[in-house]
Amino acid sequence: MLRALEEAILKQGIGIGNSVVKVDMFLNHRIDTDLLTKMGAEIAEHFAGEKPDIVLTVEASGIALAVACGIALGNIPVVFAKKSKASNQAKGMLSAKCYSFTHQKSNHLLVDPNYLPKNSKVLIVDDFLANGEAIQALMSLIQQANCKCVGAAVAIEKAFQPGGQALREKGMDILSLASVKAIEDGKIVL
Amino acid sequence: MLRALEEAILKQGIGIGNSVVKVDMFLNHRIDTDLLTKMGAEIAEHFAGEKPDIVLTVEASGIALAVACGIALGNIPVVFAKKSKASNQAKGMLSAKCYSFTHQKSNHLLVDPNYLPKNSKVLIVDDFLANGEAIQALMSLIQQANCKCVGAAVAIEKAFQPGGQALREKGMDILSLASVKAIEDGKIVL
Repeated sequence: MLRALEEAILKQGIGIGNSVVKVDMFLNHRIDTDLLTKMGAEIAEHFAGEKPDIVLTVEASGIALAVACGIALGNIPVVFAKKSKASNQAKGMLSAKCYSFTHQKSNHLLVDPNYLPKNSKVLIVDDFLANGEAIQALMSLIQQANCKCVGAAVAIEKAFQPGGQALREKGMDILSLASVKAIEDGKIVL
Repeated sequence: MLRALEEAILKQGIGIGNSVVKVDMFLNHRIDTDLLTKMGAEIAEHFAGEKPDIVLTVEASGIALAVACGIALGNIPVVFAKKSKASNQAKGMLSAKCYSFTHQKSNHLLVDPNYLPKNSKVLIVDDFLANGEAIQALMSLIQQANCKCVGAAVAIEKAFQPGGQALREKGMDILSLASVKAIEDGKIVL
């Protein structure tokens, strides 16, 4: 857990309904680069021993944190998967289906295999972990590229949704910098 | 001009047809974070005297460079405009129409006005400058928010397209870290 992020969530985050955590003001639309740098450093510290070669994320809101991690890990490259409605737009691209509960539709995540060279050690980074769909799709891309996934780091885990537990049960090393236990009457509970 | 970026373009970039500069391998899909940090530092050095309060960019491929600039400018916040097909999806958002020549369709760029407080000094950052549509839309958002635009910085200007000249004729301070003069038989000419 990263205290500065938890404080930002409690002070600035907005809980909507019983499942939405709005952190547009420092992570998803406006980016607090001071906090972002701290998050990147924390993730780098946790995974440095695994010596990842590449940080893999998804456009658009994963890019900022992935860049902060790539820099903190000693300027390793960042690859971001692109979202596409159809996998057949993907000439020569690796493709994995990904259902978005937020937008209630399926996307395909696409990566050029040239940017995941065989046997690379890949660290997944994303802003949120809820049902785990995005991380599972990224894991599929890593597997298709014959690379090794060294783990996944997210800014905010929604611990009341099943993604984190399911991934940990598979043996994945998942680092969440903040964990939301519930949203009660618009209040975010860590 | 930034020599390291020019070298990356000449060594790794791919010219397609007579107008496409493909730099997916270090800027738009895979991000070279070492080069990105140098680009951010160069832009920060140029605009530091203007003391910008906010870096404004567009999702998705502008985010990485904008973050590098925000960090290099002393951890100032980065705001990225979101792309939407329709301006009426934009309850309470500032909106500006933006035609994409690459995708041959119009988007609306949306920004929450809370993240552009009145009288802020805003630096625009993007990956490419070609026809200038994106930068003009961002300038419109800045104006709608009653902020001041202190200039725009891009990684790569396509100097054979009219955007840069048109903006400079309006008095804008435009910094291009690399300028592509032409694409001849698939060869990128700087």
